[in-house]
Amino acid sequence: MSDSATDAPPMVGGDGICSYYKNSYLQRRSANVVKEKIDEEIAKKLDFHNLPGASNTFRLADLGCSVGPNTFFHVQDLLEAIKQKYEMQFRTSQTPEFQVFFNDQPMNDFNTLFNNLQQERQYFAAGVPGSFYDRLFPESFLHFVHCSTSLHWLSKLPEQLLDKNSPAWNRGRIHYTNAPNEVVSAYASQFARDMENFLSVRSKELVSGGMVVIISQGIPNGMLYSELQNGVMFECMSLSLMDMVEEGTVSEAQVDSFNLPFYAASPEEMTEIVERNGFFSIERMELNDPAAWLKRRINIPEWVVHVRAAMEKSFSKHFGREVPDELFDRLTKKLGKLSDELELKYREKTLLLVVLKRQ
Amino acid sequence: MSDSATDAPPMVGGDGICSYYKNSYLQRRSANVVKEKIDEEIAKKLDFHNLPGASNTFRLADLGCSVGPNTFFHVQDLLEAIKQKYEMQFRTSQTPEFQVFFNDQPMNDFNTLFNNLQQERQYFAAGVPGSFYDRLFPESFLHFVHCSTSLHWLSKLPEQLLDKNSPAWNRGRIHYTNAPNEVVSAYASQFARDMENFLSVRSKELVSGGMVVIISQGIPNGMLYSELQNGVMFECMSLSLMDMVEEGTVSEAQVDSFNLPFYAASPEEMTEIVERNGFFSIERMELNDPAAWLKRRINIPEWVVHVRAAMEKSFSKHFGREVPDELFDRLTKKLGKLSDELELKYREKTLLLVVLKRQ
Repeated sequence: MSDSATDAPPMVGGDGICSYYKNSYLQRRSANVVKEKIDEEIAKKLDFHNLPGASNTFRLADLGCSVGPNTFFHVQDLLEAIKQKYEMQFRTSQTPEFQVFFNDQPMNDFNTLFNNLQQERQYFAAGVPGSFYDRLFPESFLHFVHCSTSLHWLSKLPEQLLDKNSPAWNRGRIHYTNAPNEVVSAYASQFARDMENFLSVRSKELVSGGMVVIISQGIPNGMLYSELQNGVMFECMSLSLMDMVEEGTVSEAQVDSFNLPFYAASPEEMTEIVERNGFFSIERMELNDPAAWLKRRINIPEWVVHVRAAMEKSFSKHFGREVPDELFDRLTKKLGKLSDELELKYREKTLLLVVLKRQ
Repeated sequence: MSDSATDAPPMVGGDGICSYYKNSYLQRRSANVVKEKIDEEIAKKLDFHNLPGASNTFRLADLGCSVGPNTFFHVQDLLEAIKQKYEMQFRTSQTPEFQVFFNDQPMNDFNTLFNNLQQERQYFAAGVPGSFYDRLFPESFLHFVHCSTSLHWLSKLPEQLLDKNSPAWNRGRIHYTNAPNEVVSAYASQFARDMENFLSVRSKELVSGGMVVIISQGIPNGMLYSELQNGVMFECMSLSLMDMVEEGTVSEAQVDSFNLPFYAASPEEMTEIVERNGFFSIERMELNDPAAWLKRRINIPEWVVHVRAAMEKSFSKHFGREVPDELFDRLTKKLGKLSDELELKYREKTLLLVVLKRQ
């Protein structure tokens, strides 16, 4: 029961023009790609006859909820599917009471979240500050866990990345894109440890029969991160920072000591971790196209604004407040020059949907 | 399940020098006056043999928690007493898990609250935004409710106070101190309605055998509010504002349309409301001396800083941001001139302790 701070950045708070609140609709559209699949899993697999306590009060947690509004849309969608299942199973329109727990790190802007909660809502709401890699709830408390676009953030960076004597020293880069195998392995091991912690604490918090839905960035097995559009973006971030090193705006040591704690797992990796943990059955595990809704070319400035709302705080904390303006400006320009290449990059299947059930 | 905003002000947020976080230790010392009595009630009346679910997870809510740190101290004290009772009743040191819900209005600064939560704590924490005059939790969810120095804030002001044609029009005053009987009655009726709502929603949320502890400002039966030190303070606030009207800093209409939604009930009033509600037994109902710890004369500037941290937002919202500085400055001076009178004012028994048990 500790609020161990994680290295993952809190999103930009408030609801101003640069806020995550205003600049997270791309994440929402991506998540919507799998909405029907989640509804289908709920309709098929959620079993109120074997879900202790759920017929009185159904408890759902959204882990890594940020400041909204995506979390409110997700919760609304989930509750509708859950209610439908209840009504189907009991042939009644009298559903249980619902209690929803919005979780994120203590540094998250909960004030914005709470002030944007719908006034007339069909559930009791609570905010839970803390890392979802730790215990957040009492034993056998939850019936449903949702975790969208959050689990690709590691709890912390592997220490070897900063050790000049380690083969995993990540010099001149800020991510494992195009990095030596040792760097990629260090990231992968940290992800495996984090995911194992996540499953282990959730296995205690969920009742038997409870479900977990995870939506995160994934990657097809064996593919290199540099083959993805996000890989190109991370590479351009590294290059932009190295340009700034040349111009003296930031120091090389600053770049060498900075790494984004962001990791995309393959379904195969995820499957292995879940099976090793042993408390959950895998109901669904698949990659989806996060841009299935996108009928035109990528709008690069719009994309960068979204990335910035999610990541700016990491950069300003490490490099200082002035750096993000220039960095994201350079990033937009660099990506603009690569727009044809970006269109050709593999992007079809990078949204990982995982549906688990507590045995 | 709606966040109906109340007229009670949120305390001054953050943890700066003017914040409630830094200027609420007088409230804490007052509440400490009744600590032993609460411990005694827990030891005698809390019965784990007849408290559904409490032996697995014990759920406690602090309603009107503000930003801390008082809420953390209260919760800590309560949990210690509750654990002791459990250990006594079951002769084991293995206690249940504890889950604590910190509630206040959605406008409360939950960010400050969450950032000041102890990292290593013996309970799972959650924040619950909403008015405690509405439902906040599912049915039969809580085992213990604590509500300290909050219930004297009304949910809203009686409308008659602003009606020029009503005998309860509160012209030239900002409180019912020294006001006509109609004004006092309007406040009293609103308090009764609020308290009835409070009990009615809590009766649903608490399990049978669950306890409620209320600490709020009270008054001996039949006494006038002007006979209390706080009465003198409210009167001086009204007079300071009327001085500012004369000087043209605020308008008379602004003063006439402003009233503090603050009401102190007598044990007799409280008893009547609880008995009319009918869901709770009264385990303890008594007035205490809130300044039993104070061995010296009142420190007026210190007192005013505390009052300001709790009430400033009400004034700045109505009169504008510049008014509180001058108002509280004038208030300090006016009270300074009355310091001898203040020492003589009745102050012994204005802290109302109410302990209830859900039948």
